[in-house]
Formats: sequence, structure tokens, C-alpha cells
Amino acid sequence: MPPRPRQRPLVANWDTLQRVFIRPEDETVRRTLLKYMEQILFGLHDFLRDHVGITQAIRLKDLAEGYGDSRIPAEPERKLAEVIQGLVEEVAPCAVNVASPYFIGHMTSAIPYFMVHLQTLVAALNQNPVKLETSKVVAVHERQVLAKLHRLVFRRSPAFYRRHIQRPASTLGCFVEDGTLANLTALWVARNRCFPRRDGFAGVEAEGWAAALTAYGVEHPVVLVSQRGHFSLRKACGVLGLGHRHILTVPVDHRQRMDLDALSRLLDRHHDSRRRSRVMALVGIAGSTETGSVDPLPELAALCAPRGIHFHVDAAWGGPTLMSDTYAPLLEGIQQADSVTIDGHKQLYMPMGCGMVFFRDPRAMDAVAYHAAYVNRPGSADLGIRSLEGSRPATSLVLGSALAIMGRRGYAVLIEHGIDTARRFAAAIARRPAFEVITAPQLNILTYRLVPSDLRGRLCSPDSSRRQAANARLNHINLQIQRLQREAGRSFVSRTTLDLPGLGDTVVLRAVIMNPMTTLEVLEDILDEQEALGQRVCRAEDPTA
Amino acid sequence: MPPRPRQRPLVANWDTLQRVFIRPEDETVRRTLLKYMEQILFGLHDFLRDHVGITQAIRLKDLAEGYGDSRIPAEPERKLAEVIQGLVEEVAPCAVNVASPYFIGHMTSAIPYFMVHLQTLVAALNQNPVKLETSKVVAVHERQVLAKLHRLVFRRSPAFYRRHIQRPASTLGCFVEDGTLANLTALWVARNRCFPRRDGFAGVEAEGWAAALTAYGVEHPVVLVSQRGHFSLRKACGVLGLGHRHILTVPVDHRQRMDLDALSRLLDRHHDSRRRSRVMALVGIAGSTETGSVDPLPELAALCAPRGIHFHVDAAWGGPTLMSDTYAPLLEGIQQADSVTIDGHKQLYMPMGCGMVFFRDPRAMDAVAYHAAYVNRPGSADLGIRSLEGSRPATSLVLGSALAIMGRRGYAVLIEHGIDTARRFAAAIARRPAFEVITAPQLNILTYRLVPSDLRGRLCSPDSSRRQAANARLNHINLQIQRLQREAGRSFVSRTTLDLPGLGDTVVLRAVIMNPMTTLEVLEDILDEQEALGQRVCRAEDPTA
Repeated sequence: MPPRPRQRPLVANWDTLQRVFIRPEDETVRRTLLKYMEQILFGLHDFLRDHVGITQAIRLKDLAEGYGDSRIPAEPERKLAEVIQGLVEEVAPCAVNVASPYFIGHMTSAIPYFMVHLQTLVAALNQNPVKLETSKVVAVHERQVLAKLHRLVFRRSPAFYRRHIQRPASTLGCFVEDGTLANLTALWVARNRCFPRRDGFAGVEAEGWAAALTAYGVEHPVVLVSQRGHFSLRKACGVLGLGHRHILTVPVDHRQRMDLDALSRLLDRHHDSRRRSRVMALVGIAGSTETGSVDPLPELAALCAPRGIHFHVDAAWGGPTLMSDTYAPLLEGIQQADSVTIDGHKQLYMPMGCGMVFFRDPRAMDAVAYHAAYVNRPGSADLGIRSLEGSRPATSLVLGSALAIMGRRGYAVLIEHGIDTARRFAAAIARRPAFEVITAPQLNILTYRLVPSDLRGRLCSPDSSRRQAANARLNHINLQIQRLQREAGRSFVSRTTLDLPGLGDTVVLRAVIMNPMTTLEVLEDILDEQEALGQRVCRAEDPTA
Repeated sequence: MPPRPRQRPLVANWDTLQRVFIRPEDETVRRTLLKYMEQILFGLHDFLRDHVGITQAIRLKDLAEGYGDSRIPAEPERKLAEVIQGLVEEVAPCAVNVASPYFIGHMTSAIPYFMVHLQTLVAALNQNPVKLETSKVVAVHERQVLAKLHRLVFRRSPAFYRRHIQRPASTLGCFVEDGTLANLTALWVARNRCFPRRDGFAGVEAEGWAAALTAYGVEHPVVLVSQRGHFSLRKACGVLGLGHRHILTVPVDHRQRMDLDALSRLLDRHHDSRRRSRVMALVGIAGSTETGSVDPLPELAALCAPRGIHFHVDAAWGGPTLMSDTYAPLLEGIQQADSVTIDGHKQLYMPMGCGMVFFRDPRAMDAVAYHAAYVNRPGSADLGIRSLEGSRPATSLVLGSALAIMGRRGYAVLIEHGIDTARRFAAAIARRPAFEVITAPQLNILTYRLVPSDLRGRLCSPDSSRRQAANARLNHINLQIQRLQREAGRSFVSRTTLDLPGLGDTVVLRAVIMNPMTTLEVLEDILDEQEALGQRVCRAEDPTA
């Protein structure tokens, strides 16, 4: 944003500065502030509607040139009105219109407008739930909201919730910024419960890995996760000092679900005191990032329980499916997990920044408790005692309000639209000769690719090098299509690379159907565009075709 | 929030649900939505002004009784208007009015009203800077904002910033949710740079602690931090698998700054290859949580550099002091750090959720890079490649806008008010016979306590057990005062316990002066209240007094 000519001093002196801290009593000023809100709420919307699809067609490099000034202006440079106008007219068009029904590439989408109101209220109250002294009732409210989600997942008895919902010593879960931190928290707890305090050893949290392995006679600690696990799990193992090489990937079956035979073999080998090996945690996925697949959770739970292995379910994506009576059975077994990740900013349709992790055992998070002299004193009800983060926004006010506004039914309608539309989309893809479905939707994510007719035959060739060559060519074409479609800025589908049996690394187009405005007509448009782009790519590279 | 009688179905069917996703075009609906915003912006303010000081006098236990229902309602229960009304009239009064000038207990305060507007815009745009495909220009903008803060801290050359500001391979810093995660990120990088890849060893991030210690012949890795360090540093060492026992606290001098002689001795002992010991990082504090003290940063830097020890500065609180030409010299030496934490939601007066960490070396964060097939692919400019977190809000839009609106000068005025007022407050305390200043303000935090005249004499007794007894009695009195004042809800000062030479554990009242509305008159009121409470406590427990 280039500086603009300044009309008068803004907040650089004491009087003007004080005024921005006092919420104005004067009616004229209030009307002005409301006008700015109007610009944010509707000006932004109208501008995006009239001027852009997904994003303006401008290259990153050209964009970057406008953002090269590293100096903080010495004096105030812009007034609020100018800043808002700049964000609406200069930034927004070159950002990504994730609310567009044509944006089906990532786990970010339109959110109900009331979420914006609620987020405004959170900012206006500016509570900090880390401690009661900066949140009070908000901490109590947060415990309630977490209990509601816990109950959705673990379905424990009413008596259980009566006992634990407001008990300071109990922790049913916690808010973190995102799914990465939720998974990290779960594995942090799992690590500490795998190597807890015992005679002469103060626990891995206090003494670190080297002492822990000695104390427990373990040489090879590992975490097991499906090949489709999110990369945050690898990162978590790196952060926690296990080393990300010690997260072992379990192969998946043709439905992208963890292969149980392979898992059993890995468990036998890596959870064996004679070999000095131990599985610190097994992670099941309920809605994998790439394919939306759900691991066989009951079987995973049954393998973990007798071995005393921590069973974590990464349901960052799929968790809210439990709101739908129709599709909740897809997540059967999740209630047997020791811990579960759910992201509110995904299928609870909240604004960014609402990761959550839940623990079946309300004392599990005791394994990560910390105290200080000025907050979180032992025995206090401060939420910051058992939490990865310290200061954080009062996100529970948004989620709690959303649950009241939507009810389970409201969320179920959204979830069911997503899954039903994804299935219909898969059928539409299958009907088109130029496409093939790669992974059919279990929830509301699917992958597919364009396969021009001349290459389709070669994929079935008995000659494996011919098959490989055809696949490499398809990878190239689909990669190009995805890029061109993204750059054109009318619609957006993402891509990933799956290692498929018989084909090896395969570039696929990935669609995430969560926006209720994304109808089958929209999806057919997107396929049309991809088909046209495919022809263009093939023609450009092979003018004889 | 108890459910209310429902008037009509809300968002439980497809039509109503779709409507909450479409930002309305209709003028009447827009006016209604704006009315809700008005209620949030001004209704909340008016209610707090008229009905509460800091918080309503109600016990936590009584509050908790209203938040015992753990069921998500099956059907929609409340409309947005009702939810907002409930939050304003039921929740807000029992939350904590951190914007009150009488709230001087924690590092949370009033924020300028434009911050609320900016936060609303972030929610309305709902970008996810983890990847370009969900943020595009916002990621570019974020790089610029981080560079501005980096330059404030490290003052590197204009050429340096021209080179790195938009270079995808360079990382000047990153946003995280809070200071805890910023410190964790800094120590994560420090750990990985202390035990990097080398012949036959893939680095601690990949192989974990046990292999790292073997590869480097180290048995005793430690982190050094002042006794006044934030507890998040201990937590970070626990999370990272070092073990929090291996964070060693360096004693402080009478000004609560790290004692350099003690530090030198610790460095000699714990950074010695013959002893197989290694200091992974030294953490200096620029504005300690309890006393606002600043460690002697140039001396710390000088001790680290020749030994190749990572020097981290936790300036979560004090960092923005650099905006003031008058007081920036208090942080001299910070530019020699390897990494620096700054919290935007503290003295940059942003809403909750803006931690930041900066690295002097733009390649330092390569030590924590992660890739995946669907995002953050090698070579891409996605910000999520080098970042603890994945999905997160576009906080840089708030900070970048605030820098334009305030300028350095605007922030300097705030910082200078805080420090100047804290000094005048200390003088006012010293003038009162019933009080004593315990730690004078270096920045804008100070500690003090009430000392009734009969106990003051005993504190100087040559008999040490008599001194101890007097101190224990003072601890009790000051603890009671702080509690009673908090419960009365008119003003709030926090408390902590400092281990003071000759006295041992000493309960002190802690004041953080950051709200520009907090004048000396307000502070004198608070002292009056404390003095009255002190008399009440002493009388109640010793009716003969």
C-alpha cells in the first residue's frame, strides 16, 4: 500500500491518541464508525461480487513489487477509512475469494455472516482465557463449549459430564490455533504418558528423551500413522524430539484407509519390549486431507487397547460429520480414541484460528501441566495450566454461539450437502469420457484427473514402461491444468500427488465440497473449464494432435 | 446461557441456511446486520460503562452453575440478535473489563477501536496465510509487515531488506498465536541448529534427541534463562524433549536483571566439551512478566557470540519500546540476538492472538522446514513451509494497518505514557508510609506491597526469625488485599511471589501500566482502596489492633 498524501495529524499526539481508545459517546462519531463497518461487511462483498471470481490474474512476482518497503512510517500515514478502502479495493481483489462457490480446492470456504459478527465481539471484549483474572465467566463458558464437543465425540454418560464439566482439576480438551497444534498437543500428552514419572525418574517432560529411554529400557520409540496422515504429525514428532523419522507410515488399501494387516505387522515389530521398541501412539485419520478417507477406527482402537498404546484420531476435517445422524456412522469407533483433533475453522464454518483437541480421560492433560507464580498457580482454575498456548482469543464465544444458532440440525444440513454433492460430483466425473475418478468420496473430498482418450488406452497396456510413460504424461497435463485454472482466477481446484499401486506417483485434482453454494451446475462448469484447458495443454505441446 | 422460547425455525433447513451464507443484497437485511454491529460496538461499551467496573462481584462457583449443560442443542436455539444480547447482558458483565483504566494487573488492556474494525475485516476475508492458494497477496503483505518489525529490532541494512523481504527462500520471522509459541519456535530453531545434520546423522529434527546426543558427544544439553524468565520457556524445553529440568535459571541482581558473574560461571560449567555439556541457547528477557526488568543484552550477546550459542531475547512485552526514540536505548543489544519474540496483543495494542518471532539470519528457519504433497511443496513461496502452525488468521492485515494508522510516533506516545506513568506511580507509592516499592519500573511494570507501620519496624530487626515472621505476615496481608480488591470488582492489580535476598518468598502487588486512560489519579484511587483493604484485613485478624 503506497502512502497517500496526509490531510491532518492522525493519532500521533496525546489527544487524538486518547480518542481512539475511548469508544465514542458522540452520535456523529458513532455513525462514522458504523459506516466503516458497513464498508467492511458489504463494501467488501459487493466489490468481490462485481470485480473478481477467485482472484485477480496477477503474478506473485508482480504483486511482490508493491510490497517492498520495510520501514515503519515515522508518522501516521493513513486514516482508518483509507486503510479500509485500501484493503477492500487493493488487497481483497488480489487475495483469494475463498467464499466463492467455485473455490473448491482447500478446506477453507464461505462462512455464515454471523460468524463475522461474533468474531467482532470477541475482539471488542478482548478476553484472555489463559487465566480467570482476564476472562472469568469466559473461562467457565469455554469449559462448557469444550464439554459439548467432547460429548459429541466420546458420548460419555450424563453423570460424567456433570462431574467434569466445571471441575477445575478436569480438562476435557483445549482450544489451540489450528489442527497442527491440536495434533502436537495430543502427541505431547501421549509422549508424557508413555514415559511418565517413576522410581528415580521424574518423567520425560522433566528429564528429556535420553533419560526417558534409559529409564524405560526403550531404544526405538515410534509413532504410527497412515500414509495419508497430515504432515503436521511428522512435524509434531520433530518438535517433540522423537525425530520425524520415527513416525512410521502404514500403507493404505485401495480406499486410502490404513491397511490392517500391515498395521498388525508393524505393531508386532515396533511394540515389543524384547526388541526395546515401543509405539508411543497410533494415529487414525477421520477425513484425510488429500482424499477425505476415514481409517477403520474400531479396528485401530481394538489393536491399541490391549497394548496400552495411545490412540489419537485426527478428525480435524471429519469430526463435525458427527453432527449428522445420517453420516455419523462413518466415524464409528472415534469414541474409543484417547484423543481427538477437530478444527472449528473447517467444517464448523468458523473463521480461521479454532483448533481443538479432546481427551477421553479428563486427567490426561495433567501430563502437561505447568504453573507459575503470577498465573496458573497450583490449585487454581486457570485454563492456562494445561494448555500448549498461553494468551489466546476467546474463541469459545464464537463456537458456543454458533452451536446455539445452528443446532446440530443446522450443521447436519451442511455436512449432508457436502457429502451428497461430492457423491454426485463423482458420478458426473465418471460420466465424462475425458475424466476418471481416482479416489471416490467417503466424506466430501474426492480426487480425479483428466485422461485424454489417446492416453487412456496406453494406461491399460501390458507393457509397464508404456504405462509409466502414459502416467508421467498425465501427471504433466493435470499439473498444467491445475496451474492454468488457478491463474485464470475463475475457479480453483487443488492438486496433490498420490502413490498409487501399479502407477506410482500420480498427480490428481482434488476437490473439497463444503460451500453450500457449490451446486452440481457449478461443478459441471469447473469440469468444462478443465476439459477445455486440457485440450489447450495437449494442443500446445503436440501441434499435430 | 439458558435456552429461550423459539419463535420460528432458524437455520435448520436448507433455505434459511443458504441465506446465512449469502451476504445480503437487500437493504432492510443490511440495516439489520448493521444494527447488530452497533450493538456489539456501542451496546457493549455502554453496558460496561453503566453497569460494571472491572467485573461483577460473583463467585466462580456460582457462575459455574449456569454453565453445566453439555448437550449441543438438536435444533437452533437462538437467533443472532438474541445471542448478541446474551453476550452483552449476561456474559460481558461477568467477564473482565480489561479496557478499564482501573485494570492494571495484567498485560491486557484497552485497544484502539480501529483494531476491532480491522479484526472484523480479517474475519470477513477469512484468508489462510499457510499457503498462497488461500491467501496470495496476503502472504506477500505478511512478509512486508514482518520485515518492518524485523528492521525495527535488528536494524540491518536497506540492502538486506531489499534482498530478503520478498524472497521465498528467506524467512525474517513468523506469526504464531502467542509469546509461548514464539519462544517455542525460537528454541526449536536453536535446538535444530545446535544439533544439525552431519556425516551419518540426519539432524535432531529427523533422528531425535538420543541420536543427536550420541552424534555430538553431548550428555548434558541445557538452556540458560534468568530467574525472571516466563514459564513458557520451561514449557518449551519440556515440549522440545530437552526436559524442563535442563533449563537452568540464572540468578538476578537487585534490579531483577541476570547476574553476569553467575552467568559466566554457568556458561563455563555447562558449555564445555570436556564435560560433554552444551548450552543450546541463552535467553535474555526484555521486559520480564513479573517486574518488567530488562537483562543486560549487550553483555549477554558478547558472552554468546564467541561460544556459538544461540541468543534468544524474549521481548514479548518490551519489544515495542523500540518504537520510542526516548526509551529504545533501554533495549540496546537486542539487535545482536539470534531470535526475538514480540507479542502484538501486548504493547502493539492488538486484539488477542498475535505472537511473533524474528530471526536475524533469514535462513535460520530452514532448520524447521516441512513440506507436503498438497501444500508447501519444495520451492514454493508458501509461508507454511517454515512455521510451527499450519492454518491461522491473516493477523498481518491488522498489524500492517495499525502501523500505518499509528506510525512509530503514535506507538511511541503510548509507550512513553506507560513508562512515565509507572515512574510517577512508583514515586507516589514511595510517598505513602503504608507502602513500599519492591521493584522500581525499568519499563512500565512495577511491584510493591502494603507494609503496615507496626510490621515495618520488624522487617529491619537484627533477629532473622523475627524478620521472617514479619515477612510471612506481610505476605498474608498482601495476598488478602489482592484477593479482596479483585473480588470487589472496582479495580484490579495482580500479585506474584518474588524470592528476595534476606526475605525469601515475598508476595508483591504487581502493576502493569499500559492503558492510556490510566492516570495518576486512577492509581492514587487504587492505592487508597488497597490501604483501606489493608486496614480491614489487619483489623479482622487482630481485633485488638
